[in-house]
Amino acid sequence: MHDAYLEKFLAGETLAASRLMSIVERGGDDAEAILTALFPRVGRAYRIGITGLAGAGKSTLVNRLIRHYRDQHLTVGVVAEDPTSPFSGGALLGDRVRMIDSCGDPGVFIRSIASRGSETGFSEKATELADVLDAFGRDVILLETIGIGQLEYKIHFSAHTTVVVLTPDAGDDVQSLKSGLMEIGDVFSVNKSDRPAAREYADELRSMIELRLSGSGWHPCVVATVGTTGEGVDELAGAIASHRAYLDTKGLFEEKRIQALRNRMTMLAEEKLKEFFWENEYIRGHFDDVLRDVSTGKQSPYQAAARIVESFKIEKQKGR
Amino acid sequence: MHDAYLEKFLAGETLAASRLMSIVERGGDDAEAILTALFPRVGRAYRIGITGLAGAGKSTLVNRLIRHYRDQHLTVGVVAEDPTSPFSGGALLGDRVRMIDSCGDPGVFIRSIASRGSETGFSEKATELADVLDAFGRDVILLETIGIGQLEYKIHFSAHTTVVVLTPDAGDDVQSLKSGLMEIGDVFSVNKSDRPAAREYADELRSMIELRLSGSGWHPCVVATVGTTGEGVDELAGAIASHRAYLDTKGLFEEKRIQALRNRMTMLAEEKLKEFFWENEYIRGHFDDVLRDVSTGKQSPYQAAARIVESFKIEKQKGR
Repeated sequence: MHDAYLEKFLAGETLAASRLMSIVERGGDDAEAILTALFPRVGRAYRIGITGLAGAGKSTLVNRLIRHYRDQHLTVGVVAEDPTSPFSGGALLGDRVRMIDSCGDPGVFIRSIASRGSETGFSEKATELADVLDAFGRDVILLETIGIGQLEYKIHFSAHTTVVVLTPDAGDDVQSLKSGLMEIGDVFSVNKSDRPAAREYADELRSMIELRLSGSGWHPCVVATVGTTGEGVDELAGAIASHRAYLDTKGLFEEKRIQALRNRMTMLAEEKLKEFFWENEYIRGHFDDVLRDVSTGKQSPYQAAARIVESFKIEKQKGR
Repeated sequence: MHDAYLEKFLAGETLAASRLMSIVERGGDDAEAILTALFPRVGRAYRIGITGLAGAGKSTLVNRLIRHYRDQHLTVGVVAEDPTSPFSGGALLGDRVRMIDSCGDPGVFIRSIASRGSETGFSEKATELADVLDAFGRDVILLETIGIGQLEYKIHFSAHTTVVVLTPDAGDDVQSLKSGLMEIGDVFSVNKSDRPAAREYADELRSMIELRLSGSGWHPCVVATVGTTGEGVDELAGAIASHRAYLDTKGLFEEKRIQALRNRMTMLAEEKLKEFFWENEYIRGHFDDVLRDVSTGKQSPYQAAARIVESFKIEKQKGR
């Protein structure tokens, strides 16, 4: 089916990689077949999640990190979430902005995902595309989200190191940070550190991290950066490397890998379970009957949902 | 169980409403029991979703709308998503800021939901809390999200009218708007319209909406507002009222209500289905076995997930 692409992909052809990623992004059986075929080749790349507040300058930092890793002769893959243009229906901004820097360098592969109306969520799709880039042999993969939002927190499940990008904006204090961001950061970048009070902000952040530390685990680093000039980017990459060394020394890579597989399998099993449930004609008919009762106030949605699942249990026992 | 609270709630006691909302926010069986008991009383309130980009001034506008509806002698309920303080573990900012305005007015009931690590998502919890406020007899309920993010889009499923709040910020053009925001807006507020180029931004937005219009449906309004001074807030409320009248004239209230119930029941049934699945001991054991195969590369997570659900089907047919 996609064997021709797969062969070219394994031979290192960028166009084939791009095609396979498009199929994976669309999802469905073809996507699963490709991911299954590539699965034995996944696991070599180092994955770095870049998240944080909207407008913190994540894309600029990602550009700088790309250059840093390219200078070390490492190949780079990027999966970035992009706001969607309402007319093109595709990812627009990121590609346009970023391609300027890396255009023509075969060692950099950038893929934007439209964040538009995906049920699966960015983190799941991003993980799958990162798997393709991983199988393609990229050394480093950067996973970049556009902003806050609960789904984005999940990105750290599939990243080895998660970088949280913040800015010392006037009026914001560290206390008002969403706690999810605090919890997932292995490295914090205080970006736009040429702004006033950046040092105070970083210090405050450090004391907050200090307070949260428990025992002998990893001590998250805070690095001051200025994405636009590149200041602090080497230190940021150094902090990422320290975290990588920490994971390595403690033997935590394998643990992270198993945990990521566990999350992935749970999610996939639940998806397939739901498909199995809703394709049952009896259940669908029953649902409509019960909805009628709910809409006339005869029972609550909670009672109704319980009734439907109850009937599914019985239905299954009858072997239908 | 919570009968004492329920009685006081039905008698209009604010404290009882607050307690019931806390139980509902926690979730679980008690929450379901309360929502089931209140369900026959739900459906009278008009629900307005307020969403849009972070920093667009949504809270200030919500404050203004509260005052507007109070001036019309309508009672108001607010369910607002709040960023979570990492130490208090609770919702912090919104309550503090907003209470100043409405403090002591029994006609205003404000409830913040911590957006922290909730699996259910803000929109589901917000809908449930809005149901409580609805049963409590509030005339108007405002549902306010903190920012972008995919989950927030769902808020429009439970709102009658969805207001998208935008700002004419330098550098942003209308084209870069996330399309999800464009699609859910019944009314657009171009807030901070005292800024330069606000009129151009609003015009551009209007032409974009024009391009997207299909046939005879609702024509979304664009209203210029300045939350800090209150300018345009009456027009905003007027636009909301127009949309309400439109829904009423076209008989779309009932359709919206059934659609919301359908979404709710689907979500609840899937939750209960997953519980039923994972409480099966055989499945949990099988999952661990299969995870081992996946971690050693013997099969992909996709094959593994399919195998687990397959064994669930067989298991159920055996009637275990």
